[in-house]
Amino acid sequence: MARWEPGATQRLVVAAVDLFTEQGYDATTVAQIAERAGVTKSTFFRHFADKRDVLVAGQETLSTLLAEGIAEAPADASPLEAVAAGLRRASGAMGPTNRELGPRLKAAVAASAELQERDALKSVGLAAAMTAALTARGVADPIAQLAAELGVLAFRRGFARWSEGDREDGEGLAPHALSALADLRAATAALG
Amino acid sequence: MARWEPGATQRLVVAAVDLFTEQGYDATTVAQIAERAGVTKSTFFRHFADKRDVLVAGQETLSTLLAEGIAEAPADASPLEAVAAGLRRASGAMGPTNRELGPRLKAAVAASAELQERDALKSVGLAAAMTAALTARGVADPIAQLAAELGVLAFRRGFARWSEGDREDGEGLAPHALSALADLRAATAALG
Repeated sequence: MARWEPGATQRLVVAAVDLFTEQGYDATTVAQIAERAGVTKSTFFRHFADKRDVLVAGQETLSTLLAEGIAEAPADASPLEAVAAGLRRASGAMGPTNRELGPRLKAAVAASAELQERDALKSVGLAAAMTAALTARGVADPIAQLAAELGVLAFRRGFARWSEGDREDGEGLAPHALSALADLRAATAALG
Repeated sequence: MARWEPGATQRLVVAAVDLFTEQGYDATTVAQIAERAGVTKSTFFRHFADKRDVLVAGQETLSTLLAEGIAEAPADASPLEAVAAGLRRASGAMGPTNRELGPRLKAAVAASAELQERDALKSVGLAAAMTAALTARGVADPIAQLAAELGVLAFRRGFARWSEGDREDGEGLAPHALSALADLRAATAALG
């Protein structure tokens, strides 16, 4: 659980994103992805339901880590402090491969309506996981939903800055995600 | 632009949602939707790219109305006051048919992963339209994105309450959407 599941899953994700970038999402087949990753098609289907699913590799892991971090935050933590704990926990699962894939994944999503839809549903899933974890802490509606949405925005904005930044700095995702969350928190004062 | 486009579009949406509810999304064909609506398949394809597209009928209209309302808000309106103006404008396009379809549409979405993805992308599209309109007013990032996300949440929460409420009351969507926005604004104070 510490990092992106190594081995076949990671090789399949890298192969898929490379092929999506080289030849487009629509033109890429599961057989090509499996071949590039050096595994069989049946191995592919043990890891993913279809080629679109590759995009959200790790979504369940992320949801679990976000929810665990929120659940384990101190009892007196505010809703956003609990979200920050979730972001710290989930950031630990994002390693150099995720960072390096970021810009290519972004380009592949931008070029495919199907991937945009799947990517949008990923945000919905992460928000739902965080909302449920906050609700379990006793955070009322709509505070829980709002805090969860800020958490998703912070994760996405932090990930974008991290993966587009200098990859040689050895930094993790956490400081970027937490800084994005602080920016969003500050922005609530300017909503009017 | 005042209301949901009448005629064939509306009949196709009602027919599609009815069929999705009766027999499931996957089992419903474009030919069945067209037949139920009393139009030809080619008429269907003049209105929608595919059956999934029916779900987001009116998304472009909604985006346009939200953006127009934001653009035409008074110069000294705060970001959330501008969003409220957008919600008022967009709510005017939601009539009794939209209200009545709401719960059935919700059931159809809940039962289909494909529809959930398309529905999630609809939220992304509405948020992007509002973010752009706020940015054009000079609202800085990330305040614009945050205000837009609150607008989408308010529209969705308000629509759910409106369409699940007493349909005989003759109320419009606007008071529900604005009340949801006020709830979210109040919730920002409790984020910690």
